Amino acid sequence: MGRGYVISVDAMGGDFGPSVTIPGVDLVLSRHPNMRVLLYGDEATIRQEAADYPRVLQRAEIRHAEVAVSMDEKPSQALRKGRRVSSMWLALEAVRDGEAAVMVSAGNTGALMAMSIFVLKTMPGIKRPAIAALWPNLRGRSVVLDVGATIGADAEQLVDFAIMGEAMARTLLGMERPSVGLLNVGVEEVKGVEYVREAGRMLREADLPIRYEGFVEGNDIAAGTVDVFVTEGFTGNIALKTAEGTARQVGQALRQYIGESLIARIGAFLARSAFRKLKARLDPSANNGGVFLGLNGLVVKSHGGATAEGFASAIEIAVDMAKSNLVEKIAADLAVKQALLDLPAEKA
Amino acid sequence: MGRGYVISVDAMGGDFGPSVTIPGVDLVLSRHPNMRVLLYGDEATIRQEAADYPRVLQRAEIRHAEVAVSMDEKPSQALRKGRRVSSMWLALEAVRDGEAAVMVSAGNTGALMAMSIFVLKTMPGIKRPAIAALWPNLRGRSVVLDVGATIGADAEQLVDFAIMGEAMARTLLGMERPSVGLLNVGVEEVKGVEYVREAGRMLREADLPIRYEGFVEGNDIAAGTVDVFVTEGFTGNIALKTAEGTARQVGQALRQYIGESLIARIGAFLARSAFRKLKARLDPSANNGGVFLGLNGLVVKSHGGATAEGFASAIEIAVDMAKSNLVEKIAADLAVKQALLDLPAEKA
Repeated sequence: MGRGYVISVDAMGGDFGPSVTIPGVDLVLSRHPNMRVLLYGDEATIRQEAADYPRVLQRAEIRHAEVAVSMDEKPSQALRKGRRVSSMWLALEAVRDGEAAVMVSAGNTGALMAMSIFVLKTMPGIKRPAIAALWPNLRGRSVVLDVGATIGADAEQLVDFAIMGEAMARTLLGMERPSVGLLNVGVEEVKGVEYVREAGRMLREADLPIRYEGFVEGNDIAAGTVDVFVTEGFTGNIALKTAEGTARQVGQALRQYIGESLIARIGAFLARSAFRKLKARLDPSANNGGVFLGLNGLVVKSHGGATAEGFASAIEIAVDMAKSNLVEKIAADLAVKQALLDLPAEKA
Repeated sequence: MGRGYVISVDAMGGDFGPSVTIPGVDLVLSRHPNMRVLLYGDEATIRQEAADYPRVLQRAEIRHAEVAVSMDEKPSQALRKGRRVSSMWLALEAVRDGEAAVMVSAGNTGALMAMSIFVLKTMPGIKRPAIAALWPNLRGRSVVLDVGATIGADAEQLVDFAIMGEAMARTLLGMERPSVGLLNVGVEEVKGVEYVREAGRMLREADLPIRYEGFVEGNDIAAGTVDVFVTEGFTGNIALKTAEGTARQVGQALRQYIGESLIARIGAFLARSAFRKLKARLDPSANNGGVFLGLNGLVVKSHGGATAEGFASAIEIAVDMAKSNLVEKIAADLAVKQALLDLPAEKA
């Protein structure tokens, strides 16, 4: 069995802990007969929850962890309490030690990022990892990064995000030459903040093996104008949450208006196939899973409030990435970038 | 007739110029028998377009302007060409000179902002005006600012935005004590960028007459958690456009799925009242109009691609503001802020 199909899972993370992670793992195991799961957490609790999921007891390897990182702990607290003993930490060590290809957790994002950096270390030249999200649009899905790991970034970090996001789109979404855009407030070259313009210049001029399409705007995200949207984490996080909130609001408003008329309720019943498809497309659980990029190992962060189906989606992303050698591809691309960026300096 | 009902309109602005602005003005005149319009632009073109709108010829005062600022001109070019002679500039002068209460244009945003600063000047203590947008949500509408005038802001600018946005919500939306939130990446005090945290401290501690509710996140915008959302212009612009794009995408996806089934098409026909209400709520033309705040005079920017109905909405915002003495209220609130912020320094 290849290393590619071993996933390490923090069973204790998320708002609901094992009551969601165990059925989530069960779902994924049912779809992938050849995958293996290392399940970290309180053994007694896991065994109790898994009593209804014999597949989990049979096929997942339960590894006891003394400590569970709580959802409201500060990263520094979590590190102090959870270093070497928490389910989150130990599941990350499995990736570091080559036992698992990807680690999945629905736990505290700040703690997970801090522990990931401690255990896996950032790649050479990467100041801070980014979180990449998959974003549904009419054409399919695109990659948006960073959605909240870096607050403030410089031009070279944005270039690194472009390289990492492009590699993710190639491997995870199976795109041959994904297009890349820099999120900005206008498409003209003169617009926007200086570090975004500088990143644009670097992407245009450095001759990287990337299909860079220039600046894109907020409305391009939902339209899927490019395959990879690059931005700094503060803006990316707010954009992601604004989009989620807007989609939810549209759904709620429509439900409310349908409820106001009997004829409309009958109509909505007849049109239910369309509503079902829309729901499936926008379903947050179907697009659940933020990928930490820029570490010497892969980590997928599930929404803390995910359902079992949602947690399973996050593991599915991990499975797809496990097959793809994404870390090695990113490392090679970053080395090419470094060589290209060093060139002009040598000439001067 | 009070000064409050005189609006100056740049007839030449927007992607479609007088062919949209004239019918837009006609619509508003039909609804407000006591309002007056000063219409700036090429007189011959305006008279030709207005031939079908006798109300405009009767009630608007056409004032000839030699130059029309084009949509793709850089602000510096527009200033060079259009200073003292363009319809945009002259319509702003009408506000400066007290002839009109508010100026409305669908023209080039950068040029309009630059000319507004030149002609009207920023208020004392304001570094750069902000653009405030009205945002539809399930509870009604909220004010979001800045949506693109300031790229990068400091803590005091965010506090100024809070003060100006709060005054706008009071006067334009008729709220007695609007709640104010700072857009951030998390609700905990520790999160986010330093200048946002600093602005939060100032709003909490300065004892301003503002109902400050703390940090809010992207998803709160669509939910309408607070009445005024404060952010810097780069992030605000991207959030606004992301929300618009998302709403459009949800609508397109639903239309596509309905089209895939005859039964669903029949159902959608029966449910059309609900769809109509949803469309009215999300209709960009119903919420068209960015308000420039922080100037010694009021300016409303319509979307360049607005329809006549949309342009009329922007003028309606101007009419509502003309009645409200918003500029005087903001000036008074900013003076209070300055006095309060100066206090601790004097104590020390």
